[in-house]
Amino acid sequence: MDHRDTIAALSTAPGTGAIAVLRISGPDVLPIMASIAPALPESVAPRHAYFTDFNDADGIVDEGVVTVFKGPHSYTGEDVAELSVHGSPYVQQRLLEAVLKAGARSALPGEFTQRAFLNRKLDLSQAEAVADLIASQSAAQHRLAMSQLRGGFGQRIEELRQQLIDFSALIELELDFAEEDVQFAQRVELLALLDRISDLCKELIDSFRYGNAVKQGIPVAIVGAPNSGKSTLLNALLQEDRAIVSDIPGTTRDTVEEVLTIGGVLFRFIDTAGLRQTSDTVERLGIDRSYKKAAEASLVVLLGDASMISEGALRTEASMLAQRIGGVPQVIPVLNKCDVPGVVTSKDMLSISARDGKGLDALKRAFVDHVQAMRTGPGDIVVTNARHVDALTKARAALLDAKQAIDLGKSGELLATDLRRAQHHLGEITGKITPDDLLGSIFGRFCIGK
Amino acid sequence: MDHRDTIAALSTAPGTGAIAVLRISGPDVLPIMASIAPALPESVAPRHAYFTDFNDADGIVDEGVVTVFKGPHSYTGEDVAELSVHGSPYVQQRLLEAVLKAGARSALPGEFTQRAFLNRKLDLSQAEAVADLIASQSAAQHRLAMSQLRGGFGQRIEELRQQLIDFSALIELELDFAEEDVQFAQRVELLALLDRISDLCKELIDSFRYGNAVKQGIPVAIVGAPNSGKSTLLNALLQEDRAIVSDIPGTTRDTVEEVLTIGGVLFRFIDTAGLRQTSDTVERLGIDRSYKKAAEASLVVLLGDASMISEGALRTEASMLAQRIGGVPQVIPVLNKCDVPGVVTSKDMLSISARDGKGLDALKRAFVDHVQAMRTGPGDIVVTNARHVDALTKARAALLDAKQAIDLGKSGELLATDLRRAQHHLGEITGKITPDDLLGSIFGRFCIGK
Repeated sequence: MDHRDTIAALSTAPGTGAIAVLRISGPDVLPIMASIAPALPESVAPRHAYFTDFNDADGIVDEGVVTVFKGPHSYTGEDVAELSVHGSPYVQQRLLEAVLKAGARSALPGEFTQRAFLNRKLDLSQAEAVADLIASQSAAQHRLAMSQLRGGFGQRIEELRQQLIDFSALIELELDFAEEDVQFAQRVELLALLDRISDLCKELIDSFRYGNAVKQGIPVAIVGAPNSGKSTLLNALLQEDRAIVSDIPGTTRDTVEEVLTIGGVLFRFIDTAGLRQTSDTVERLGIDRSYKKAAEASLVVLLGDASMISEGALRTEASMLAQRIGGVPQVIPVLNKCDVPGVVTSKDMLSISARDGKGLDALKRAFVDHVQAMRTGPGDIVVTNARHVDALTKARAALLDAKQAIDLGKSGELLATDLRRAQHHLGEITGKITPDDLLGSIFGRFCIGK
Repeated sequence: MDHRDTIAALSTAPGTGAIAVLRISGPDVLPIMASIAPALPESVAPRHAYFTDFNDADGIVDEGVVTVFKGPHSYTGEDVAELSVHGSPYVQQRLLEAVLKAGARSALPGEFTQRAFLNRKLDLSQAEAVADLIASQSAAQHRLAMSQLRGGFGQRIEELRQQLIDFSALIELELDFAEEDVQFAQRVELLALLDRISDLCKELIDSFRYGNAVKQGIPVAIVGAPNSGKSTLLNALLQEDRAIVSDIPGTTRDTVEEVLTIGGVLFRFIDTAGLRQTSDTVERLGIDRSYKKAAEASLVVLLGDASMISEGALRTEASMLAQRIGGVPQVIPVLNKCDVPGVVTSKDMLSISARDGKGLDALKRAFVDHVQAMRTGPGDIVVTNARHVDALTKARAALLDAKQAIDLGKSGELLATDLRRAQHHLGEITGKITPDDLLGSIFGRFCIGK
């Protein structure tokens, strides 16, 4: 543990609440507490909740509860005090000022978690999961963040990196004995290890498509001819589920009209103009934009008015649309307006009535099935972080280079360089290797007090 | 302690923070904790902070810290658990649902504090102080709420009530021996006690003018002829101090333009139209409203343009204004625009330049001095609550009736009735005597989780 100063911040959400929590971490926690809470016993029992007065130079600020955690058995790994006081903004501010006057300084965003990382309480991927967990809005986002926080991902990467390091050491040793042309590292075993790691990297990279979609919300475009019932469908979906849509400021994205959670997964519904043949230039621009947005979605619902279009015609339209927007989004044709008298519904195509809600459950099930089908990662580990994908991609490239170096019988120096590169990029994920500016950019995105 | 159910609520401010606290109180705290945090030891040490997992039927919700307080050594006097988790609205909501499913019910606003009152952890005036403390925006508001929370006020009332009860008991005893015409209670001592209590009641009632002004913010009207610089002065005051104005939603009052804290006291600045002789009906209506608003203020700053009006003329205007609006607000004449070349400033009248800030410190000192002069209460006890004033007024009336009953030699029955009335109203303040609907109206104003 480096020699560091003592930091403090209000850790609960800003504003008025019944209680608020102020957190202090660093070597001066005990003297600061002795100064602002003089009634505390001289020897404070760790993890014991004391009810006491908090004072500044002007007198009593509040009475409340303080719990001291002795490092390294704390969140940050340093001495930590958590002060629980009345949730008045005035009290919070004055208490923070008292703590700062007593010798702490204001914590930067994410600085508590950064210290936890620097003191090896969390690896970097776990620290990033803390931010994801706090931002999580749906059960699926929460599950991914939680799993990453629990360390499965970082641990797996670290194990493989360790095996690579062991092999590398043998390769480096061979270099020292280069003139004697010995082989300490079994090439067959090394190749098997390289395959194993690069396969895992690929699986993890592939899982990002799912992980990122879950983290950002699965983009769904609802397209169709004018009056096919797109808005009615969107309203019907929202009406039923709006209550469980999170309403966090700052999460709304520019191009997104509405978000809602279905089956524990956050979906982002993309507004599109009606699709039809037109000679109107302005309308055509809107329609071109609709195609573009549809292409960016993960799922496209092609809505047809069942009283106007046959199942076969809608199916053909869906194929044409899929072709036009490229192969990435899945296009689901859906017959709407099945409540119109005389309309014959199909067993082979989703048939709904956005107006009276018939078939909506089946449609929602199709959404959730689509998300399930996106999961291709190894077991329960899913990459949700673009930084990790970048590191995994670079690590995999280095591993493939290493394989090639062995296959082509290249020099030990080249092989050793490739292996070092792979280790380096794997180490970036868990933070074993981290340039300072990377840390700044990761922890700067946290809220203050964490 | 009655048999009560177990309540739970999120106690920190709503929204996203680094951490959030969920509070549970009642007889089922331990079984609920065993159900959602199965890794806790079977015998949980009170006031010990455990780091543990929190689960619901779908799996892990979060990992965090839980501290259990065993009743009666807790805020509510019942068993209490405080769960500190990651401050994601999703996690908070899901954890609360888990706790409710495990057997708690959602707490009503103020219900934790209500239980503290019912379990005699706080008297009613202290419980009310908790709400005031949470709402406090300035040092002065905070000081009053804190002093009331610390119990000085309620304790003093309770002591006097107890002395009254002792005397009443003797009077009631005399009634039992009515035929023998004995006097157990010394009338001279009783009269002295009645004087002492009714004097204190009067002082406390008088202190409400100060207490209420501090709690609501001291109303200050800035009036003066058009172009005397009212807006410039207001802006100059705000510019310097705006940073320390609290910005809590819901505290803005209809008729108030701006609030700011000077010397730890909250001031509310009331906007007024310029005062001048006019024949325009609409303008005259505006000016009438200005006089009305000035009459409602605690302090009226009469601004004069020093380049247009003499010190003597402004002083005369101030006397006329004071006469017109009645004797309650203090009128301070202030010469503005002292930066205009050729203007002679006075030593006997506040002279400022709202434009360049000269003299503003002296003006602010005058504001604070005015507030100091309003304090007439006994020592540090100030009444801030209209309910208390009402009870004190009724208690005092009963005490004066009792005095008169003694002076006029009225029957013991009448005296006993007056004394019971006085006890009753004093008891209302600390909650020794409380109709249920009063409790509902007091605690219903709290935020949930307190």
